[in-house]
Amino acid sequence: VCQYAALVRARTLALRLERDSHLPLPQQLALGIIEQIRSGVLAPGEVLPGTRTLASSLGVHRNTVVTAFEELVAQGWLETSSASHTRVVSELPIGDKLSPRRRVPGAGFDVAAWSNSARAFQALPFDVLDFTGGLPDARLFPAALLARAFRRGLRRSPHALLAFGDPAGHLGLRRGIAEMLHSTRGLAVDAGDIFVTRGSQFALHLLSLAILRPGDAVAVESPGYPSVREAFRLPGATLVPIRVDGEGLDVATLAKKSAKRHVRAVCVTPHSQDPTTVTLSARRRLTLLELARHHRIVVVETDYDYEFQFEGVPVMPMASNDEHGVVVYVGTLSKALAPGLRIGFVVAPPELMRALVALRGQIDRQGDHATEQAVAELLEDGEILRHSLRARRVFQARRDGLAHLLHHHLGSALEFEVPRGGLALWARAADDIDVDAWAADSLAAGVRFFTGRHYSPTGRALPYLRLGFAHLDEGELDRAVRVMARTLPRE
Amino acid sequence: VCQYAALVRARTLALRLERDSHLPLPQQLALGIIEQIRSGVLAPGEVLPGTRTLASSLGVHRNTVVTAFEELVAQGWLETSSASHTRVVSELPIGDKLSPRRRVPGAGFDVAAWSNSARAFQALPFDVLDFTGGLPDARLFPAALLARAFRRGLRRSPHALLAFGDPAGHLGLRRGIAEMLHSTRGLAVDAGDIFVTRGSQFALHLLSLAILRPGDAVAVESPGYPSVREAFRLPGATLVPIRVDGEGLDVATLAKKSAKRHVRAVCVTPHSQDPTTVTLSARRRLTLLELARHHRIVVVETDYDYEFQFEGVPVMPMASNDEHGVVVYVGTLSKALAPGLRIGFVVAPPELMRALVALRGQIDRQGDHATEQAVAELLEDGEILRHSLRARRVFQARRDGLAHLLHHHLGSALEFEVPRGGLALWARAADDIDVDAWAADSLAAGVRFFTGRHYSPTGRALPYLRLGFAHLDEGELDRAVRVMARTLPRE
Repeated sequence: VCQYAALVRARTLALRLERDSHLPLPQQLALGIIEQIRSGVLAPGEVLPGTRTLASSLGVHRNTVVTAFEELVAQGWLETSSASHTRVVSELPIGDKLSPRRRVPGAGFDVAAWSNSARAFQALPFDVLDFTGGLPDARLFPAALLARAFRRGLRRSPHALLAFGDPAGHLGLRRGIAEMLHSTRGLAVDAGDIFVTRGSQFALHLLSLAILRPGDAVAVESPGYPSVREAFRLPGATLVPIRVDGEGLDVATLAKKSAKRHVRAVCVTPHSQDPTTVTLSARRRLTLLELARHHRIVVVETDYDYEFQFEGVPVMPMASNDEHGVVVYVGTLSKALAPGLRIGFVVAPPELMRALVALRGQIDRQGDHATEQAVAELLEDGEILRHSLRARRVFQARRDGLAHLLHHHLGSALEFEVPRGGLALWARAADDIDVDAWAADSLAAGVRFFTGRHYSPTGRALPYLRLGFAHLDEGELDRAVRVMARTLPRE
Repeated sequence: VCQYAALVRARTLALRLERDSHLPLPQQLALGIIEQIRSGVLAPGEVLPGTRTLASSLGVHRNTVVTAFEELVAQGWLETSSASHTRVVSELPIGDKLSPRRRVPGAGFDVAAWSNSARAFQALPFDVLDFTGGLPDARLFPAALLARAFRRGLRRSPHALLAFGDPAGHLGLRRGIAEMLHSTRGLAVDAGDIFVTRGSQFALHLLSLAILRPGDAVAVESPGYPSVREAFRLPGATLVPIRVDGEGLDVATLAKKSAKRHVRAVCVTPHSQDPTTVTLSARRRLTLLELARHHRIVVVETDYDYEFQFEGVPVMPMASNDEHGVVVYVGTLSKALAPGLRIGFVVAPPELMRALVALRGQIDRQGDHATEQAVAELLEDGEILRHSLRARRVFQARRDGLAHLLHHHLGSALEFEVPRGGLALWARAADDIDVDAWAADSLAAGVRFFTGRHYSPTGRALPYLRLGFAHLDEGELDRAVRVMARTLPRE
């Protein structure tokens, strides 16, 4: 009778073993028994069927059961009782029977308020024509060359590229970036001065953690790029918005503010301000450097689109004129490559560089050196320069195409200067247009763009829109502008 | 005479143009003139040589000079004076003549104190045999398969992999990881529950920023992994060290502490504690889950080496038993792959997941989807499982080899249990041995290992050492242990 009861019990345990699973049978069995204890099917103190009975019930070798039991005894789920029976330990702190497990349950703790300040990620429907971002066109990128360089690198030095390396970046890429900055932007740097980051955004994140303490004042451009504000807000800095006019950041206002309280850092985009596309005037550059020297302000110079100057000469970075070590230069290769390749860089005074590299070691240890090596190879072979020049011609044509389309379809609604460089156009809307309503209606109709509000530190409505044109081809630009014309609200 | 003086002046300007430079000639000329203004060679208000004179002096077409001048006028460096001369603007705020530029100058600002708390990165000499880290052996990894998968992915969908994608990770990889966690670790998850990070370290960084505010109490294992403490200290949390004994984290002590003040989170390594390699007992697991439910504590469960169980059954993660949404499960593929491939993952309740993904979008936008896709393909093809099984056999042999070598060469100095899983061994040194002096002498002789002090939250000396064996082959282990025996200090 006892034998029969045990057999019945063995069946009711409903332990399912799968022969073709990755898991060895004893482990499957052990996990199944734990599950039965957890769910209350096996009660604390309950004696389990014998190993032979359970084995025959399950159709496995007895050793499978013995191994599983031994393991569960070692783990503290089962214990061997005096009569050489095995039973569930009696003191497991399982109170009530537990409800069947939800998949991933809701949080049993509180999610901190500040994490909610992060803008939630929302995937766009696949067919939205997206003017946001000022991105290059990933479709133009020579992906096959990248794949080949990736493979060549892994063949040549698999161990070095797959083991831990220098958190400051793959040496070949640091050399290539230094050479590029030296020959095209006048920076007297070598590989040791270059810190490779995961895009410029990651550089801003590291910088904000390295230089800011809660309550520090940081000056930002207004209007300006929201990610800059988010990066500086994260460690609790106080933002000091400084207005941008036709000459760029209003340095005189910054001077006034920094006379009143110490401004720890200022983030500025001298080459092509985001969103307005204006260039910081020579006069203001020099005044800003002098101001920073005097007040020991960190000048974070961000530079997104130096490669994409369509007319005239790109203005050299302030970093190339930095006599006093006040400038931290943040740039990116993601625009010359493709947005999904997160390759940015920082040039900073050595003391700060050491702090940034140490911090980076804590955060994600290092970049993907296999990818960094591949990009270094493309840089050295001149492929990135060739690609940039090709892309620049394409983007210039798209810029002109967009300007033409806007004049044609939205001539009375928008006023703008055709930007001499960069991947976006900044347009002022006529007074009778509610740009935010327009943006919402356009999005509903399949075209997304950001309005001035997106760039305002205070979230104030501004009668502007920014149109990133480079990643949309002529046909897409045409469709997008027609949608904008159709959804244009006028009072 | 005036013409002659202008020509002389043109020569003294020493503007050098390079025909084979990437930069167009007008741009080179413009940059050169800016440099001359910056360095004081061209004074504020000085009239420049005429375009014809300068062109002939430089051996370029006159249009080159005209273009450069126009650009510099637009940028605000030059102005056209009444007599149709061009001169340097007079109000540039350049005071004294500036000294020749140093390369990258020392910082003109103060580097914040807390960034110094980051341990500086120090590259090891190439030939040091390194026991630290508990790393897998990158030399065993099938790099060619990864390169092939990378290329195939870029060929199939270059645009999707190179444009912006989901910050939560490449969907294929999320699916693969969910499948793996489901079939081998009992987690009822699908792709939507998986967040791909750059290694588990980046996951801890994101978590600490998402859930902690300055002053929050976070319980950590003592001894424990230093990176965990660094991650939690960054946003200003207060660490509450809880001792680890033969059953793992002392949950009763945690209960006492959390009765006194709210403990926001506890970080625990139930499967194989770092550094001690002990497994958290079943009893304590359940008590900890109950404690967390009651006090709304976030249980951060880190799991580094689930794949590498040499004997017995790996204990299922606490996350597989999490009824109340208190567990955040952090794991890594870097151990099953190679350390330089930064692929980790988080499973968390949906509210927290949304916050983490939004935060990640701010920090580095997203991972490398081309690499993530390649890893997903290896996962799906079973290559990673095959590699793990192969590697497990190799690592088991190395573990046994190390245990034998230690018994043979250091039998009286060390006491240890051979770990049943994981990539490192934790050994207690005899009382008369100064382990820190030993570590220093060993390093000088070419072998590095960490002592108990490295893992102590208070930096206290502990008579232990941790030896990561998996990335050293038998010959290297032999050489390393012989060096340790030679440098063994005894009183």
